[in-house]
Amino acid sequence: MNTPDSDRLEQLNRRLAAFARARDWEEFHSPKNLSMALIAEAAELVEHFQWLTQAESAALPADKREAVRLELADILIYLVRLGERLDIDLIQAAHDKMDLNEKRFPVEKVRGLARRASEYD
Amino acid sequence: MNTPDSDRLEQLNRRLAAFARARDWEEFHSPKNLSMALIAEAAELVEHFQWLTQAESAALPADKREAVRLELADILIYLVRLGERLDIDLIQAAHDKMDLNEKRFPVEKVRGLARRASEYD
Amino acid sequence: MNTPDSDRLEQLNRRLAAFARARDWEEFHSPKNLSMALIAEAAELVEHFQWLTQAESAALPADKREAVRLELADILIYLVRLGERLDIDLIQAAHDKMDLNEKRFPVEKVRGLARRASEYD
Amino acid sequence: MNTPDSDRLEQLNRRLAAFARARDWEEFHSPKNLSMALIAEAAELVEHFQWLTQAESAALPADKREAVRLELADILIYLVRLGERLDIDLIQAAHDKMDLNEKRFPVEKVRGLARRASEYD
Repeated sequence: MNTPDSDRLEQLNRRLAAFARARDWEEFHSPKNLSMALIAEAAELVEHFQWLTQAESAALPADKREAVRLELADILIYLVRLGERLDIDLIQAAHDKMDLNEKRFPVEKVRGLARRASEYD
Repeated sequence: MNTPDSDRLEQLNRRLAAFARARDWEEFHSPKNLSMALIAEAAELVEHFQWLTQAESAALPADKREAVRLELADILIYLVRLGERLDIDLIQAAHDKMDLNEKRFPVEKVRGLARRASEYD
Repeated sequence: MNTPDSDRLEQLNRRLAAFARARDWEEFHSPKNLSMALIAEAAELVEHFQWLTQAESAALPADKREAVRLELADILIYLVRLGERLDIDLIQAAHDKMDLNEKRFPVEKVRGLARRASEYD
Repeated sequence: MNTPDSDRLEQLNRRLAAFARARDWEEFHSPKNLSMALIAEAAELVEHFQWLTQAESAALPADKREAVRLELADILIYLVRLGERLDIDLIQAAHDKMDLNEKRFPVEKVRGLARRASEYD
């Protein structure tokens, strides 16, 4: 994959792998279990926003914003662990998916149409 | 944040922002809505693993592995969008969270203990 | 539990158990796996609402409403399966939880306060 | 819907509606918001099982079983609220979905086949 050692995501990946290895936690880190841990973190993010309006969710007070920041961190942590366990280059995967999205949603066809936005996934 | 322009995650971020902007989809991308989109993608990942044993989840056939790869991509895409909307440096956030985790779970206290692993989050 | 045989939820429970048994699917229905299946269905519900405003989510067109109706069905199906596997009376559990909620959120303390609503769970 | 007033699920429904109404919380209970609250509860269930084996998840110690019981309660509570807000009879919806499932998964075609089980949804 030729990811340079200096890549920030790769550095995080190495830190997370070392953390799990030092604690003998790798046996718990099956992709099945990690997918459960990831969605549990995603739900903690959702919980922060569940009673807010959309506008409120974009203008969080400082303490809530910090809590949300650490939820995003947790999601990234489990996502990187999954990438490591399954030997998947996450950034490359995202670019491959965006290549597909650009074909599926050409600008001239979907611009400004809420209807089409609902097909984003 | 001093993220170099050449950073791979930052490059992905710029691509995703341009994609949404070109389609006038930014109005739909409130943090509240993006958190819903992210968890929906996380659930598609979970769905791939729900009837598999842990061992099966670590040894996916090629077609399933490719499908899983694109689910991880979708999760990263929405995570990066959330980071952009909330002006959060995801990698920095993950390191900050790991600083906390290293204090919460010292090696000598939790090594090899399944019980403690369940407290990982 | 003294649930009368004529109870509608108990009748559904018996139908679902017979369905799984007839297909030899009970081996897949561990609580762990069923929790994954349940959250995957919950996410399909979320997906219907992710780009809608709150007002739009309360005024669905007929075809979308029917799709949402069947998502709620899927969630109930897995919830009832979990109750059966773990020998839990769901309705009794909900009343027990509401007894707790009524103590936690007395009317005079939380009425009309959005702030408190965010503590509902 | 002809649900008898004595139906246990209908009684729970009335209790939950009265609880929200007394607190002026109905404005927060849009289907969009309730779907978020429901998935957040589903994730708390998943969290209980994420590091357990399937066998462990079927043999919970008493304190964990009680915690799981209250998570199932929370899911049912939000599911019933959604049914009320959208005027959907949950039990009828589940039977309608099972009619579809019985056609989609005939016994002679799927019995004992793990492969097919993965198509359950």
